[in-house]
Amino acid sequence: MSTALVVLDLVGIAAFALSGALVAVRKPLDVFGVLVLAGATGLGGGFLRDLLIGATPPAALQDWRYLLVPFIAGLVAFRFHPVLGRLEREISVFDAAGMGLFSVTGAVKALDYGLEPPAAALIGMVTAIGGGVIRDLLAGRVPVVLREELYAFPALVGASSVVAEVELDLGEFWVLVPGAVIAFGYRMIALRRGWHAPLPPGMDGY
Amino acid sequence: MSTALVVLDLVGIAAFALSGALVAVRKPLDVFGVLVLAGATGLGGGFLRDLLIGATPPAALQDWRYLLVPFIAGLVAFRFHPVLGRLEREISVFDAAGMGLFSVTGAVKALDYGLEPPAAALIGMVTAIGGGVIRDLLAGRVPVVLREELYAFPALVGASSVVAEVELDLGEFWVLVPGAVIAFGYRMIALRRGWHAPLPPGMDGY
Amino acid sequence: MSTALVVLDLVGIAAFALSGALVAVRKPLDVFGVLVLAGATGLGGGFLRDLLIGATPPAALQDWRYLLVPFIAGLVAFRFHPVLGRLEREISVFDAAGMGLFSVTGAVKALDYGLEPPAAALIGMVTAIGGGVIRDLLAGRVPVVLREELYAFPALVGASSVVAEVELDLGEFWVLVPGAVIAFGYRMIALRRGWHAPLPPGMDGY
Repeated sequence: MSTALVVLDLVGIAAFALSGALVAVRKPLDVFGVLVLAGATGLGGGFLRDLLIGATPPAALQDWRYLLVPFIAGLVAFRFHPVLGRLEREISVFDAAGMGLFSVTGAVKALDYGLEPPAAALIGMVTAIGGGVIRDLLAGRVPVVLREELYAFPALVGASSVVAEVELDLGEFWVLVPGAVIAFGYRMIALRRGWHAPLPPGMDGY
Repeated sequence: MSTALVVLDLVGIAAFALSGALVAVRKPLDVFGVLVLAGATGLGGGFLRDLLIGATPPAALQDWRYLLVPFIAGLVAFRFHPVLGRLEREISVFDAAGMGLFSVTGAVKALDYGLEPPAAALIGMVTAIGGGVIRDLLAGRVPVVLREELYAFPALVGASSVVAEVELDLGEFWVLVPGAVIAFGYRMIALRRGWHAPLPPGMDGY
Repeated sequence: MSTALVVLDLVGIAAFALSGALVAVRKPLDVFGVLVLAGATGLGGGFLRDLLIGATPPAALQDWRYLLVPFIAGLVAFRFHPVLGRLEREISVFDAAGMGLFSVTGAVKALDYGLEPPAAALIGMVTAIGGGVIRDLLAGRVPVVLREELYAFPALVGASSVVAEVELDLGEFWVLVPGAVIAFGYRMIALRRGWHAPLPPGMDGY
């Protein structure tokens, strides 16, 4: 992976690790529980991606920075969570940032490993939603991706735009940045404005 | 994989995807939640199978039909769920059909990848129960495989019969069809007649 | 893997399978539910380990003893659970034993596959906590690793000591035994004495 891609991957890991650690702080779990949930949330999406595309052992097990980042993010959240403020809002912002970044790195890495464009877009989405699903299953919460706000779709849109940009052979900046911005921005606007996707016909009275 | 095996795999994916989509419709989730649960349920068992036997990237990521089938099944369930009628019964029929088909395709593919007969039968069972377990974990339901009705055992019987038929070197029809019919039929009869497996001694008064 | 390592792996599988089967007996699940939860708990950690280090198909699918052990452990727990006595305490002892053994076998196998020491220690911890997490997710319980008692940290300490001992090039006994004893003993003492790790600052009044 290029340096830019590794940096985005590490920032995504930090964002997801913070979201997982804040969920753990809120229960509250002890310091080891916070670190385990930070690690599982930060690294879970990338583990899923690497297992599915056959890139084993996963990147996170071959590069100590991938282990250090969620460890530090977990400790920061543990110690400074009151400064981080109203937890629910912070969790959702960090979660959206991790989602946007992972939709990009997931799709690009899948293309690198020879997957076709539709499969690469799907892997981008799975990378983006995987860490949050693991966090929510471990914490006994309904996975955010299945709740009513738009989540999986922004991830898929971001990942698909990355795949399209790679096909168009644009420079690295134009491949890496717009997809993450699209996925993060779409998600945040949907969250703030309370956008909802359609419910099944006849079920919208619930 | 032979054409017949791919067809059975796709029909199993469609059946499980419908079961996942109907669980999602019933909560109710929005259209993207329905598609995510349809995809995770339809493709989850095969992903587990392919990861465990080392067939990465999984078949579903190398063949666009594997992605199209759960997408269409999810949209059909989203739009036409009132026509599909009483959801609980439909979910269990589609679920049993997917289970029967995956017990066959899982066992045959595991044998193709060189696993010994007992391991291949186990992989058949894991393929058959995996999608439903993922569906139920994501939806916050107790996995159907752990509830009281017979589920894992019919899957194991179906997968074991496939392994035996391959050992006997029968033709393709006799390898593929009886196992699926046995697993599906056993499950449906158990469900309709309320058959139960024994509870632990001293615990059956619950 | 050496014979000693396979023996420790099988004993760890038996211990975890008993813990899973006793959780199932306690719900109560039927005989097949008990066997499924015994198998998932006993083999889940090793499956995770082998998938993450790229050792597919997993050891449990290439050696019939790995399938026989959880099967027998499940049947024993199903039939003799009243003799096994007060279930909660037994579950936690078997669970701690499986955790200690898997922290060793996970770390050693990861080193064998070429992972760096910090990643190998992490794989040891994941192997040690994976089966219990799968058991608790399937059974609808909050994973024990996230509850307040010390769990992940003893596993990491045990796995780290193994990695250090391998680096020091000690004999097999000194590599395999101390790590398991440290992880198991630390966990049991923490459990019996009610040791707790620190809660997040400001959250300890909960």
